[in-house]
Amino acid sequence: MPINLDKALGAELAEIPFEYDKQKMILYALGVGAASNPVDPEELKFVYENPPGLLVLPTFGVIPPFGALIGMFAAPGLELNPVMIVHGEQYLEIRKHPVPPEGKLLTRPRVANIYDKGKHALVEIEAETFDEAGDVVYFSTFGILARGEGGFGGEKGPAVGNEPPNRAPDKSVEMKTLPQQALIYRLSGDINPLHADPNFAAMAGYERPILHGLCTFGFAGRAILRECCGNDPERFKSVRVRFSRHVFPGETLVTEMWDEGEGKIIFQVKVLERGEIAISNAVAQVST
Amino acid sequence: MPINLDKALGAELAEIPFEYDKQKMILYALGVGAASNPVDPEELKFVYENPPGLLVLPTFGVIPPFGALIGMFAAPGLELNPVMIVHGEQYLEIRKHPVPPEGKLLTRPRVANIYDKGKHALVEIEAETFDEAGDVVYFSTFGILARGEGGFGGEKGPAVGNEPPNRAPDKSVEMKTLPQQALIYRLSGDINPLHADPNFAAMAGYERPILHGLCTFGFAGRAILRECCGNDPERFKSVRVRFSRHVFPGETLVTEMWDEGEGKIIFQVKVLERGEIAISNAVAQVST
Repeated sequence: MPINLDKALGAELAEIPFEYDKQKMILYALGVGAASNPVDPEELKFVYENPPGLLVLPTFGVIPPFGALIGMFAAPGLELNPVMIVHGEQYLEIRKHPVPPEGKLLTRPRVANIYDKGKHALVEIEAETFDEAGDVVYFSTFGILARGEGGFGGEKGPAVGNEPPNRAPDKSVEMKTLPQQALIYRLSGDINPLHADPNFAAMAGYERPILHGLCTFGFAGRAILRECCGNDPERFKSVRVRFSRHVFPGETLVTEMWDEGEGKIIFQVKVLERGEIAISNAVAQVST
Repeated sequence: MPINLDKALGAELAEIPFEYDKQKMILYALGVGAASNPVDPEELKFVYENPPGLLVLPTFGVIPPFGALIGMFAAPGLELNPVMIVHGEQYLEIRKHPVPPEGKLLTRPRVANIYDKGKHALVEIEAETFDEAGDVVYFSTFGILARGEGGFGGEKGPAVGNEPPNRAPDKSVEMKTLPQQALIYRLSGDINPLHADPNFAAMAGYERPILHGLCTFGFAGRAILRECCGNDPERFKSVRVRFSRHVFPGETLVTEMWDEGEGKIIFQVKVLERGEIAISNAVAQVST
């Protein structure tokens, strides 16, 4: 079905209530590989509730609004085919620090942009996630590639940018994912069978289930948090990524970082075993 | 405080309601290492809810009655000191097959036996776990060693038995635990800081947090289920173990099994890296 720009653009999607507790928070942190390295006691504070107290990984911010990717299918004028959908890009901004390790949030998502990429369309869902005081805690943009839906005569949208500079990375962190990483991560809410079911993955053209893009995103977030924020979540302001290739659970992620000054960190994530770039055109803003 | 046998023996502990869903079930299975081996697709059915449907690992049966170890401290005539308590032995019998992957259960625990082991006392908490139809699904015995509480003039209790026969094991399975294994396992309910907090572990005399005995128990259960039951939970009838030594997360567990005929499997669990025996005097009954 062709996209109806007039109807779809600006459409508000169903509100998403989200309640979380420390157990949920810890489960998320384990899902993105926290505390896999026993020589890094710094990460205990993301997976253990007792003193000095549980802290929230910045990338957790994509979990409360995640339901927008379901609500999107009910948007007027879009009529997207779930099989043709790819999570292409992600932006996340943490607007209110510190994020408490338990609470109630409400997300209000809307169709903010629809770009015509020629063959494909890029649908941007913007979401504001509010706490009970009515403040915006997270602002996020889910960039959804609707394959085959381009050519409707819309704007092309901004260039992606954030290419790594032409020098060796300033910092590089290697993190091995677990064979069961996607099985742990999916307990945080994204139960798409593509990440668990070998038959489903085969139908989608993969030799086995693939890792969630947002799981890889979480690993990269941990790498940046450690290398550029001294593991202090309050220094982590925002992050933008493009999902360029899949990752298989069990593979090793190498997050390469370039410090561009004033807290701007260009980065990318490579799959060590295959030399593929899984996350590209990525940038984080941290406070220095 | 000395144990008051007359008051304590037979005392009923608080009932334990327990509600579980597929997510909880999967979290337990991941906690005891299920699906860590991507070449063993047989285990997918314990960690994934879609066809052919989620099956319940037999050793999950210790989770619903686990609260008895808390309730125990309120038992009349026991007055146990939490710091002096060690989970020494465990028995579990699955009485109603198949166990559904979600439901509501109720456990009724009582102080069944108190043995005088000389220096220490062994308190046996028996628990029946009922489903909503009123049938007993699990029967379990938690053997709690109360250090320093022996010498009250009670019975010595039966010998432990179940020594491995004098031959090489008939089967042996190696399973590596994760550095973060205890952090995953504790989300199933046993949040004792001994398994997560380096400072607490140091006070207890360990160089770092140790794995839950019942987590090691779950790994051994998976080994027996695979080698002796063709991964069919309905063939797993009961299991009895003694916790003889601690395990550190990240270590490799070797479950050695001796087939004694008629479904009787004597087994033990060794820590590969240190040559210690973590679970001894153990036996499982399976249907042949």
